Amino acid sequence: MDGFQRGYIVPIGGAEEKLKNPLILQKFANLCGGKDARLAIIPTASKLKGAGQHYIDIYRDIGVDQSVILPIEERADSEREDYLRELKQASGIFITGGNQVRLSTIMGGTAVAKLIRRRNAEGVHFAGTSAGAAFIPEHMIAGGRNTPTPREGGVILAPGLGLTNRIVVDQHFRQRDRLGRLLSAVAYNPFTIGIGIDENTATFIDPDGVLEVVGSGAITVVDPRELSHSSMGSKPTGKPINLINLRLHLLTKGAKYDTYTRQVFLE
Amino acid sequence: MDGFQRGYIVPIGGAEEKLKNPLILQKFANLCGGKDARLAIIPTASKLKGAGQHYIDIYRDIGVDQSVILPIEERADSEREDYLRELKQASGIFITGGNQVRLSTIMGGTAVAKLIRRRNAEGVHFAGTSAGAAFIPEHMIAGGRNTPTPREGGVILAPGLGLTNRIVVDQHFRQRDRLGRLLSAVAYNPFTIGIGIDENTATFIDPDGVLEVVGSGAITVVDPRELSHSSMGSKPTGKPINLINLRLHLLTKGAKYDTYTRQVFLE
Repeated sequence: MDGFQRGYIVPIGGAEEKLKNPLILQKFANLCGGKDARLAIIPTASKLKGAGQHYIDIYRDIGVDQSVILPIEERADSEREDYLRELKQASGIFITGGNQVRLSTIMGGTAVAKLIRRRNAEGVHFAGTSAGAAFIPEHMIAGGRNTPTPREGGVILAPGLGLTNRIVVDQHFRQRDRLGRLLSAVAYNPFTIGIGIDENTATFIDPDGVLEVVGSGAITVVDPRELSHSSMGSKPTGKPINLINLRLHLLTKGAKYDTYTRQVFLE
Repeated sequence: MDGFQRGYIVPIGGAEEKLKNPLILQKFANLCGGKDARLAIIPTASKLKGAGQHYIDIYRDIGVDQSVILPIEERADSEREDYLRELKQASGIFITGGNQVRLSTIMGGTAVAKLIRRRNAEGVHFAGTSAGAAFIPEHMIAGGRNTPTPREGGVILAPGLGLTNRIVVDQHFRQRDRLGRLLSAVAYNPFTIGIGIDENTATFIDPDGVLEVVGSGAITVVDPRELSHSSMGSKPTGKPINLINLRLHLLTKGAKYDTYTRQVFLE
């Protein structure tokens, strides 16, 4: 970690394999230093007791025994000095699933959120699964309708953690039929790239903005750079909209995508 | 304009006085050079023919006779070289009212949007009224319910132009009873300051992030920095939510507010 190259950003589509062959979590642990990794696990998205401990146990099975839980439950917890100290020592930060609006309401604008952004910029790696993945970008999908058809009002956007502004992330993608809401998100303002991530699938985004697909499913990339028309601004709420000239990629493990040049590289 | 100090950002709450005593538009014109001002007027939010010409006429009455209209109607127009040339020559950029989702869908991610951001960073002043004001921030209020009570699902956010990330703007504020949707926007992620602007009222945000109120109404500032609890992440969509420890200011003409230190200064 040289302090100049930013850390990886790893959105995971949820329901990642945890026991038999935890490929995604193993790869993230290796990135963070393998046996020497020190992971800070943030279970704030979940209301289930034990969500943090569950990942402590999984990472221990993988060989990482220095993980800690930061049990942030209220906004005041996001200012705690002891949690900030842990984040300063961590080689990786992991946010569990649950509800991404809990993450934005409890951590947004706090010292913890600022420190996570700074640590990632300094080279510390970040992974989030499900809600933890949705929370990553500046523009976060907070909710919406699960349908294949994009509509005005088909997606609820909210400000996220802000590790990147280049993508917007949706998860449990194929499993919950979310193409419509990802397209709605992209259609509002076509500056951002939509990334839909299937369950047990992740994208490892390297410091240069090139992502690689890992896991058993696919990712869906919606690139609106050449979009010539969107009727999002002229249809009543809830009505299907026109979107002309989107570029779409479906990518499986090993495939890479450069979020700057917008090129695909196959193995 | 020294190329190092950014330009003013001027969100106007809509329905600004245009004939008898057009205080807000006059002040903006003076800022841009008075008689020597060269304004680029973008009527894209409106579907009414003549929306651009209307402002050309008003600004001519004020004494600015070098304004031009950029009639951007489709995404391809946002890449036109002649429009980019006009933006490079303008001393001020003005976006009219209408529907802000037309602005984000037609201009988002295009050469025009990038150039407006760059020109404002270089010192060119920017004003937008109504939809043109909503479009200013990174996180734009695209729609929502007009009620005083904040709710999950009470606001529709979308990525905006991105001239600033420090505020989110709502307009026609008192006239359309929009406190609820501004509070909903702030409650999602309390890093941003909510600014509700009444009709015939504007905030002139100077290069240091200090805003001054101009016009006949008030602005409503919602500062969530001390927010200790938000139930946005735990209530079903549409239900009213709890928000504890928001700071609220109502400010009228002459009052100033520093968006960095969050202090109010009265005349």
